[in-house]
Formats: sequence, structure tokens, C-alpha cells
Amino acid sequence: MNDALTRPVAAVIMAGGKGERFWPKSRTHCPKQFLSLSGDGETMIQKTFRRLKGLVAPENVYVVTNADYMTLVQEQLPEIPEENLLREPAARNTAPCIALAAAVIAKRCGDAVMLVLPADHLIRHEDLCIDVLSRAIAAADAGDNLVTIGITPSYPETGYGYIEFSRSQSAPTGVYQVDCFREKPDLETARSYVESGKFLWNSGMFAWRTAVYLDAVKEHLPAVAEITGRLQSVCDTPDFQRVLQEEFPKMPSVSVDYGVLEHASRLFTIPGNFGWDDVGSWPALQRVAKTDTNGNYRNGDVLTIGTKNCIFAGSDKLIAAIGLEDIIVVDTADALLVCAKDAAQNVKKVTEMLREQGRGELL
Amino acid sequence: MNDALTRPVAAVIMAGGKGERFWPKSRTHCPKQFLSLSGDGETMIQKTFRRLKGLVAPENVYVVTNADYMTLVQEQLPEIPEENLLREPAARNTAPCIALAAAVIAKRCGDAVMLVLPADHLIRHEDLCIDVLSRAIAAADAGDNLVTIGITPSYPETGYGYIEFSRSQSAPTGVYQVDCFREKPDLETARSYVESGKFLWNSGMFAWRTAVYLDAVKEHLPAVAEITGRLQSVCDTPDFQRVLQEEFPKMPSVSVDYGVLEHASRLFTIPGNFGWDDVGSWPALQRVAKTDTNGNYRNGDVLTIGTKNCIFAGSDKLIAAIGLEDIIVVDTADALLVCAKDAAQNVKKVTEMLREQGRGELL
Repeated sequence: MNDALTRPVAAVIMAGGKGERFWPKSRTHCPKQFLSLSGDGETMIQKTFRRLKGLVAPENVYVVTNADYMTLVQEQLPEIPEENLLREPAARNTAPCIALAAAVIAKRCGDAVMLVLPADHLIRHEDLCIDVLSRAIAAADAGDNLVTIGITPSYPETGYGYIEFSRSQSAPTGVYQVDCFREKPDLETARSYVESGKFLWNSGMFAWRTAVYLDAVKEHLPAVAEITGRLQSVCDTPDFQRVLQEEFPKMPSVSVDYGVLEHASRLFTIPGNFGWDDVGSWPALQRVAKTDTNGNYRNGDVLTIGTKNCIFAGSDKLIAAIGLEDIIVVDTADALLVCAKDAAQNVKKVTEMLREQGRGELL
Repeated sequence: MNDALTRPVAAVIMAGGKGERFWPKSRTHCPKQFLSLSGDGETMIQKTFRRLKGLVAPENVYVVTNADYMTLVQEQLPEIPEENLLREPAARNTAPCIALAAAVIAKRCGDAVMLVLPADHLIRHEDLCIDVLSRAIAAADAGDNLVTIGITPSYPETGYGYIEFSRSQSAPTGVYQVDCFREKPDLETARSYVESGKFLWNSGMFAWRTAVYLDAVKEHLPAVAEITGRLQSVCDTPDFQRVLQEEFPKMPSVSVDYGVLEHASRLFTIPGNFGWDDVGSWPALQRVAKTDTNGNYRNGDVLTIGTKNCIFAGSDKLIAAIGLEDIIVVDTADALLVCAKDAAQNVKKVTEMLREQGRGELL
């Protein structure tokens, strides 16, 4: 809580994801962000909330998530006031999600700085992350700036979006101008991005003032702005839940990057390098969690012979692995996944097949 | 039941194996021979018994096995008279096992022909097998012959012993002289065996008269013969179980091939080719059981994407496999095995490790 700031600071944790790429541990009734995938007993959303301590007061932390997950959030984050838990009646991607939070925060705290954070990322060097977030808050507080946290890329990842950035005359030290957003590249393009030194990973973490974001939405997503205005007008009245239920699903489904930031001016980035990972699929665990001397990530009762660079997520039950390389094994009570690491993107196909087969109990 | 035979015919099913290479399905309390590894609901010992129908009357079928498995045998083969179930108080390999059975059969039926069959092999063409066994019985009935069933090798298997054979003046058509037994060869040697046309796989199935076998044991394994004589003298008396308990463990542990057949004269083989497999380890299932169009053996609720030549042995629980090749997945309530097919020989290492770790409940 930085005394030099002129405005209050709120944080919005976006926790509406389904985490299907982490099936079968991540399930419809308890997706990825509510699991301790790293195996230390602390769930991803709990880690996200804990990291904010010292930066944002608990009463200023908001969670936006699917109505079905309210109980999970209350159980895992009892410190957050119930009125700060915002229910999305339907998933409408990040632009409407952040607009809803911005409207509620603006109503309660005025033109506060809001930090926007996904609930399901892992960060190895938490102190370094906090430093970058503090500077993002300061940069957002200082002007009409939309600030995104960029990550210095450590390898040519093809699963992330990239930010092209350059030095800016008007920005303070360590803050850069965003020139362009780039969709997930192919490997060759990713390599050229990394080599150029001109690109950052798009982390999905942002800081801006509520008024700055709501103005940008009004300019670039008027349909979202209109409904957001209606929601704001009934915020903290008995009508709020009903209007939210009726109006929110009418919003278009659009991401903040595509719908707002790509068209916005005064867009800045603060590059950080703090062991960030969006933990997008099972292979990510090998990057972000502790592995044995053979590079195996082990969660559960695992016995290995001649096995390397594998990922084991089990439970009390013994998993015996022999002669495996680059294999993912995830065991749960009612479903077992065995998957080649380079085919992990097809985990989603399994969930699609199960849905088609009417086997929703396994989702 | 061939009317042309001069002697009664008995069959001995050897069912004392531990089947550790089929862990974790095969367990100390219920090893391989009592499981339906092929997934059709009929266990391996039930298949072995059923194949004998038409060849040997049920009252002439004997089972020799570990005392612990008596209940399993009674449950799975209720047609066999209880007095034909012979309990080995300790495992002493095949020579003493067959000697015990020969002594009991000789006491009850005199110089009968006895067929000796392992309980845990699979045979694809059962009618062809029956034909070969009939001819083996006839050859055993016709003289002082030790007859072994050889299998025309279809590929250079390194997991089997081989029989070198040649034409014999004294034997009837289709019966050949055994020149030599060969231990499990390396791949190059196995290839030369198969190419030469002079070698057969040693199937572990035999036929001979009780007197011929007991004479051979007397000559080559006098210590076994002496104890066998003592057991025979009390057979079908109230003392039998006690004497068996005391005396049988004193026998040396020795296989019939190494202890008797390698030294015997009048040793013949009948070559057969009836889709025989000793199902020595998990990869064998792909050879002997039905596979899908991608060569996957599937037992249980299995969903595959881009997966070929794998072996899945599960249960009611869903197994989702993605991008796998040549992988074995065996799921049970308390242990899961995931193993590269070419490392399947190390399944035994897992059971050894569990024994060392005092985790006998998983064996």
C-alpha cells in the first residue's frame, strides 16, 4: 500500500476459467484455479490472493467468476468480503468481466487504480513480481494509461501471445510503449520474436484506473459499455443480482486484448521477469514446479524406473512408471489420463468427446 | 477320449506360478492363471481346463498348485474332484510338481498316459491344439517315450527356450526326435534358429506314461524320486497331507527340462502351430488377444486419440490415452502401471522394490 499514490488501489482476480486442459484433475465442479497443481496444498487462486498482500487490502480485492464457483471462492478465500465476489451468469471472456468489476469498484471507491490478475498463473519469484505490479500501479495512477505487464521471454513459446514494444519519450523509466499485440506465433516466428529483443509475452496482468478502462470500453465496445452502465446504476441495490442475471449474458464475448487494448492509445507495458507461467497445460508443471533429478514432476505416490521428463499427478494410489520419457500420467478416482507431452493440446479433445458422448459426469 | 488307446489318460494342470510380470493385475492372492487377461471373462486356467474336454474326463484332470490357491481353483473349476487338487506346500519348480502328480495318478490309475499343461498359456486355434495333444497322447501311449509339444516359431522370440529337432527312423509320422534343448537365445541366435527350420519353441506341454516319467526321475533326480516314493506310499491315506507338508519342501527346486528331459533318452517332439503363446508379460497380449485397427489391446473403458500398439488393461474407470505408442497402461484399485513396452521385463523390478520397501499389500 503505497503512500505516494493519489488513489485507492483495488485488485480484480479473474477466476471464471474452466481449465479443461488440466483434465482430469480440473473438473467442471472444481477447475484448475481452485486446485493445488503444484502439489504444495495452496490452490492457484489462493497463491494469487496471497501475492497481493502488502499491495492491496483484502477488502479491496474482487473476484469475478462463474456463479457455480462462489462456494469454492468463499471456502478458499474467506478474507475477501462477500460483496466483492462478482458472479458472471455466463462466460463472456475478459473485456465484459473487467468492465463489470470496474463498474462496481468505481461505484464504491471512485476512480481507483485497479490491478487485473488471472487466478491461475504461477510465479516463481514472487517478490520480483510484486515490484513490477507496484510500478504498474504507480504508472496507472500517474495518468490516463492502460498498463499491461509484459514478460521477458526466456524461450520461443508458441502458446503465448506477444507484445511488441518500444521506448517511449513520455513514459517514466522502465515503462515502455506497446506498439502491437501479436497472436500466438508459430515456432519460427516465436524464435524471431525472442531473438529481436523487441517482444514480450502477454501475461494477461493489467493495471489502470477504473475511469480509464470504462472510457476505453465506451469508445471501443459501446455494447459492453451500455450494459455496464446499467449494471453500475443498480450496484449495491437489491436489484443488482437480478439485473446482472438478465443483462450480463447480453454482452458480446470478447477479450480485453482484442476488444479494447488493440485499439487503445496510451498503452504501456512494464517488462518483468519473475518466473511467470500461465500453466496452460500439463507440460507447464515441469517448468514451474520442482522436479526430480531425472526431470520428472511427481505429485503423489510415484515409483520410477528408467523414466525421465515425465509428469505424474496422482493421489494416494501407487503409480509405477517404467521406461517412460515425456509422458503425462494423471490419475483420479474416475478417470485416468496417459498422454504424450507433445500431444497435450489434445486433452481438450478428450473433454469434447466426453461431452459429445453425454458423459458429463467425467467433465 | 480315444478308444484306440490302451491306457487311461489323465491331465495335470500346473497352476503354481506367481505371474509377477503381470503386476499389478496379477497379485499374490490371485495370480495370472486365475485372471481373464484376454478380457473375455474366462480365466486362463478355465480356458486350459475347457480345452481338455473331449480329450480327458474331468475326473482325470489334476491341478497342482500352491496351497493358498486351493479356494480359487475350487471356485473356478468346480468340475474337478477335490482329491485331484494337489497342494504344493512350497514352490519347487516343475520336476517335483510333475513327479507328485505322476505318483498320485499312478497309484490311482496305474500306468496312465499323463498330459502336462501349464495353466497360464493362451491358444488361438484350440481345435488344432487338441489334434496335436491327441497325437502326443497316442505317441506316449505307444512306448517308453517322453513327448514334448514343440511350436513352429513364427518370429525370433528371445523369451522362449528352443528345441532342436530332427527326423527319427523309429518315430511315427509327425513325431520327431529331440536333439537338444536351448536356453532363451539372444536376438541374433533366435533369428538363426528360426531361419534354420531346425528349431521349435519349447511350449512346456508334455505327454508321457506315469511309469516312464517316474523312471526318468529315478534315474536323473534320485532325491526327487525318493521323496516321491514316500508320498506315493501314503497317497489316499489320512497321512497324505501331513507327509506332503513335511516331505515336499525337501525336494530340490528344478525344472523338468533341466532336471529330467535334457538327460533323457527316447525324447520326442510333436511340432504344432496353433497360435500358442505363453503370455509371459504384458506385451504378449497384443499377440494373442484382439486389438483395434491401431493395434491397441483394450480391456476396460478406453478412449484413444492418436494412439497405437498400446496395451490397456483397466476396469470401469475411464482411461484416456493421447499420442501414445508402444505403452502399457494397467490400472487397478490400488496400483497403476505405465510402462514402455520394451521395458516390460522390469515389471518384476517393481515387485522386488515393493517387497524391499515392505509394501507387501501391493504385491
